[in-house]
Amino acid sequence: MSATYKVTGMTCGGCARSVESAIKSVAPDAKVTVDLGSAAVTVENASEDQVKKAVDEAGFTFLGAA
Amino acid sequence: MSATYKVTGMTCGGCARSVESAIKSVAPDAKVTVDLGSAAVTVENASEDQVKKAVDEAGFTFLGAA
Repeated sequence: MSATYKVTGMTCGGCARSVESAIKSVAPDAKVTVDLGSAAVTVENASEDQVKKAVDEAGFTFLGAA
Repeated sequence: MSATYKVTGMTCGGCARSVESAIKSVAPDAKVTVDLGSAAVTVENASEDQVKKAVDEAGFTFLGAA
């Protein structure tokens, strides 16, 4: 099952990769897809709390479910 | 005292901010300056191990002292 969250502050592929890595560092089995155009991050195998913590620590802004 | 490290993979201001946030999440008192052009990250008040861990988890590549 996947969930999609709105995450702002990502402006390039490096930002997208950073969010993906940060989520995987707290939830190693996570599958992460980033859509830069819509500021959407879709995640499998991680809780919302894990995603929020990772996104915050990586310097982006977690806005909750998209 | 500050130390400067080479960190690759940062391509925009969002990436730079991400590296800064990641370092501060492991070393809250750190002062971080990123020079995107030279891929240099200058850090006060954090150990090399802390910087390496933060950079790796944020999805960038830590290459050691610049």
